[in-house]
Amino acid sequence: MTGIHPAWLPAEAFRAVGSRRVAVHGDGELVDTIRAEVASAGSPSSSSPDLALSIAATPGSLGDEGFALARSDGVTTVVADAPAGLLYGFFHVVRLGEAAFNADRPVEEHRPALRRRMVEHWDNVHVNPVMGQVERGYAGGSLFWERGALRADLRRVRDYARLLASCGINAVAVNNVNVHATEAHLLTDRLGEVAAIAAELRPYGIRVHLSVNFASPIMLGGLATADPLDPSVREWWAATTSRVYETIPDFGGYVVKADSEGQPGPFAYGRSHADGANMLADALAPHGGVVHWRAFVYNHRQDWRDRSTDRARAAYDHFAPLDGQFHDNAILQVKHGPIDFQTREPVSPVIAAMPGTRLAVELQATQEYTGQQRHVCYLAPMWSEMLRFRLHADDGPAVAAIAESGGLVAVSNVGDDPFWTGHPLAQANLYAFGRLAWAPDADPLAILDEWIGLTFPAAPPQLRQTLRAMMDDSWHTYEKYTAPLGVGFMVRPGHHYGPDVDGYEYTSWGTYHFADRDGVGVDRTRATGTGFTGQYPQPWADVYESLDQCPDELLLFFHHVPYGHVLRSGSTVIQHIYDTHFDGADEAARIRDSWSVVGHLVDPGVDARVRERLDEQVRSAEEWRDQINTYFFRKSGVPDAKNRRIY
Amino acid sequence: MTGIHPAWLPAEAFRAVGSRRVAVHGDGELVDTIRAEVASAGSPSSSSPDLALSIAATPGSLGDEGFALARSDGVTTVVADAPAGLLYGFFHVVRLGEAAFNADRPVEEHRPALRRRMVEHWDNVHVNPVMGQVERGYAGGSLFWERGALRADLRRVRDYARLLASCGINAVAVNNVNVHATEAHLLTDRLGEVAAIAAELRPYGIRVHLSVNFASPIMLGGLATADPLDPSVREWWAATTSRVYETIPDFGGYVVKADSEGQPGPFAYGRSHADGANMLADALAPHGGVVHWRAFVYNHRQDWRDRSTDRARAAYDHFAPLDGQFHDNAILQVKHGPIDFQTREPVSPVIAAMPGTRLAVELQATQEYTGQQRHVCYLAPMWSEMLRFRLHADDGPAVAAIAESGGLVAVSNVGDDPFWTGHPLAQANLYAFGRLAWAPDADPLAILDEWIGLTFPAAPPQLRQTLRAMMDDSWHTYEKYTAPLGVGFMVRPGHHYGPDVDGYEYTSWGTYHFADRDGVGVDRTRATGTGFTGQYPQPWADVYESLDQCPDELLLFFHHVPYGHVLRSGSTVIQHIYDTHFDGADEAARIRDSWSVVGHLVDPGVDARVRERLDEQVRSAEEWRDQINTYFFRKSGVPDAKNRRIY
Repeated sequence: MTGIHPAWLPAEAFRAVGSRRVAVHGDGELVDTIRAEVASAGSPSSSSPDLALSIAATPGSLGDEGFALARSDGVTTVVADAPAGLLYGFFHVVRLGEAAFNADRPVEEHRPALRRRMVEHWDNVHVNPVMGQVERGYAGGSLFWERGALRADLRRVRDYARLLASCGINAVAVNNVNVHATEAHLLTDRLGEVAAIAAELRPYGIRVHLSVNFASPIMLGGLATADPLDPSVREWWAATTSRVYETIPDFGGYVVKADSEGQPGPFAYGRSHADGANMLADALAPHGGVVHWRAFVYNHRQDWRDRSTDRARAAYDHFAPLDGQFHDNAILQVKHGPIDFQTREPVSPVIAAMPGTRLAVELQATQEYTGQQRHVCYLAPMWSEMLRFRLHADDGPAVAAIAESGGLVAVSNVGDDPFWTGHPLAQANLYAFGRLAWAPDADPLAILDEWIGLTFPAAPPQLRQTLRAMMDDSWHTYEKYTAPLGVGFMVRPGHHYGPDVDGYEYTSWGTYHFADRDGVGVDRTRATGTGFTGQYPQPWADVYESLDQCPDELLLFFHHVPYGHVLRSGSTVIQHIYDTHFDGADEAARIRDSWSVVGHLVDPGVDARVRERLDEQVRSAEEWRDQINTYFFRKSGVPDAKNRRIY
Repeated sequence: MTGIHPAWLPAEAFRAVGSRRVAVHGDGELVDTIRAEVASAGSPSSSSPDLALSIAATPGSLGDEGFALARSDGVTTVVADAPAGLLYGFFHVVRLGEAAFNADRPVEEHRPALRRRMVEHWDNVHVNPVMGQVERGYAGGSLFWERGALRADLRRVRDYARLLASCGINAVAVNNVNVHATEAHLLTDRLGEVAAIAAELRPYGIRVHLSVNFASPIMLGGLATADPLDPSVREWWAATTSRVYETIPDFGGYVVKADSEGQPGPFAYGRSHADGANMLADALAPHGGVVHWRAFVYNHRQDWRDRSTDRARAAYDHFAPLDGQFHDNAILQVKHGPIDFQTREPVSPVIAAMPGTRLAVELQATQEYTGQQRHVCYLAPMWSEMLRFRLHADDGPAVAAIAESGGLVAVSNVGDDPFWTGHPLAQANLYAFGRLAWAPDADPLAILDEWIGLTFPAAPPQLRQTLRAMMDDSWHTYEKYTAPLGVGFMVRPGHHYGPDVDGYEYTSWGTYHFADRDGVGVDRTRATGTGFTGQYPQPWADVYESLDQCPDELLLFFHHVPYGHVLRSGSTVIQHIYDTHFDGADEAARIRDSWSVVGHLVDPGVDARVRERLDEQVRSAEEWRDQINTYFFRKSGVPDAKNRRIY
């Protein structure tokens, strides 16, 4: 490999299409994109094609993005009502490869389950001395900006758009939700930079969104206030937004982090978050835009001595009372768990609590708390579990259904690294995000196989099987050697990499485990704790409340228990901690070992990068194992039943 | 107050001298400085003076820096063999104030006990994104550099020199011992900046020293090696040093941190630290310069799981075997404790181990681990205890005597803050350092009174008594509410401010406390621990080894004991922890209360700054109290005998 890795779109992935005669029928920029793809794949154009891609003469029920696929009489046909649907249909054929051509197929209709499928970049224009250029980025600098300015060469952004479209993503928020002074100007005098990015994304059906600072009327407009009910503020946003749409007619909308971790917001003016979101929604409405208003609001200056405040409660307490007050183009963007993208969290009860509000669910493709793209951690199984989860009961809607009109948002794991994501195997997370946002009930393992097939098209079965074995269960492996039983955090403060059991225990961040010599965990019950379980509908309110029914993997999220407490699995908490940590580190070593057998089968550049990351994963997993085990042995005094080495 | 605070040299401090007729006899730059001081104090010059300052016609035994003071026949006389001595004599008269003139005095001879009395600046030319401009600085930016360049206006450096000379300091190392890429050039193409600083310090008898990077021959000279036995390397240093002396004829010498925390050093070439130091000593010798070679060498990439490695042992293990090998102008600069400037450490055994080597003792005026100039912490009592300590036995030499020919070095606590030291009361530490370096057996409380008298010359007795009460025992107060019984650290990693009991426990830094549910402390005994006690001569080797004889305040430095262990004080370890932490925080509150009564008696700017710092000290002391107590309660399960609130 030289230059930029092709990710899941190497030339070989187009071989099946490239060796067929193809006809493309229809007009518009996206249809032209398909024509260019077909030409680049080498397919001869033909009026008696093997593959016909057509905009339907009479649009039916496929919608803006759906398509229908069929094969009969030796011709594979893709029909769509609109160009975006045809583009998605084209990439579907690419994914199928030879399978699209080797037998008749009845008509299959494909439509995305979620309307908006967004990656959210936490990119800064400037390199922040603490957070780097990409906040929580583990793949180098920004794809968009370099040395404080828009990159002169945006060709890679076009390639990125192609990757995104090929897995179904249709929106990109380009900048960090913590909008610093320079980045605030992207809304006004630096809007041209956003327009230039939009121009690269547009041919692949992707709209740009912009994170804006709630205090922009003050920072940029010279007003004395950012009060959302102040007429001059509302006028400023309306006029500013109009100018945005004059420049970028298909602009998607705003993303806002307000009253959160130091960002300004409506609380300063005694206004509600509905007031704040609606003001922006009203400015966007005439242009068809939406505001993604983040629900990540909590007190990050909590006193650790205050046991009554529970960060897990915060989003619900702030937002549930506002249900029904948000305008239709205001989308409340909720993190999938109540805390912050931990390796294991319950589903956020906010998602069940706001039937009168459009909700988007936010997840993290960037592996902030899941190994920072130095550890193999395929996240689709976690996301799938969450998207399928039914908060009300087995017959209630799944999370994905609730988010249908709002969308699914992933914090991006991409940077200017030659492998896009630092760890080459972390590309699978971006791919799987797109695929799950399109089809939330897809099987994560099938998506993994699909990704492996596309990314390593020439791979012998041995390599495919090894990758599958390395990655499929890697989330559970990571979970085993990190914070146990859903208790979360235990990471080094600041950068969040590697273990530090008490790192956040006596801080203001609301992320505690309360381990003492007798036990560990957070009592969030209604009976004796913070009452967080009461934010869930039944049956979960009672399941989580009950020591007996609470799933093991979330036990310490909901309960403070003695080390000798017997889990549903039959093990004690302390022995479970020891066992999973020894097992997890062993599994990390086995992952490395298995790669060492097959690494030579891939490009040497990929192999070298993967090896380097696996070495670090094994080192880090052992460090996690030893710190966690030592910490809990020192606290509990309970020896390991299997007498393994604890330091 | 407007502008820069005058510290301990306000105009009023010169009132006694200024109201007398003064005659100055002698020649030279320093004598001219005295004349200028006298003129600026307003003293009329006179041939029948009240105060006569003279260079002795026949130099006697006073040496370069000593002076003789007497008063008879209504004339106070200061005589010195050399101009520097006369300058120190002049400032001695200033300190005495009216007492210098109101009665006859027999002849008193004053000579500095230590030859070199140096402040070491950890200033960088550039602002380091992590460490700031002044590493471990708590008083703003550098006095010397601003925005990557030497300050255009160096008048404040002259004022600084005056403050230093007035308390007896005669050397300044101008830059950080971690010599980064830019700062390395101060040795060569940016030497002019050092010369400009030297020009400001020279009129007050202060010589500049420069921290240099051991790899300079590679970084600056284009050589392939920095091997101290390589002839081309030795030539490069010789030639470079000659050029330094051409530019700065009174240049003091080099300071080197080698093979320490990532800095380059002789180990890379299989050479000893004596080889490294001697190479630089040889380059400096023809010019009369010295190299201060720091003994702060340890493995900062230790595995916390490795219980056999003991950072406390490192300096002795590295350097004691080299005794006798250092050239005469190579001074081994040893931190006063074996770890790193903790609030409480035993005296470093290296100081007793190298009779054939010139040793300088290094201490920290900047309050890295003692409250960062947000807490009142008058350090002279700690330094005095250390300087008077007799490592061999009661009839052996004190530390100060061992360091006589090497010197005493303080890491500077000064920056461009208007109060010089951030906390106005931290000025006392710089003053006391100078006074103790001159006279190590001076009483720290007398020095404090002297500082109060000079700094607050108009203060009513109530203010003086309050300041004395606030400051005199403030080191013990700080000790009470921070890490207990000499165990050290327990600070937030990185910035080292505020508590984090396990912050360094599982890191590579070698600073552990090993607390578990049964006990706490580091076993450094010969019998069962790391054997560090064996580095001490008798009686200390046995005193520290013995659980019964080991002083309480160092117990956890030398022993791992159960929480129920009964101290010499009669209290258990755990109850001592609770008691001292409640008491310490209470004392911090009392310090604030006492200032609130007298603050109006000082300049409002000083009062405001002191109040702001005291508020933070009280907050921080409570945080320390609660974290430490909660941590040890959670670990031990032992309730407080007095039933106070533990979270």
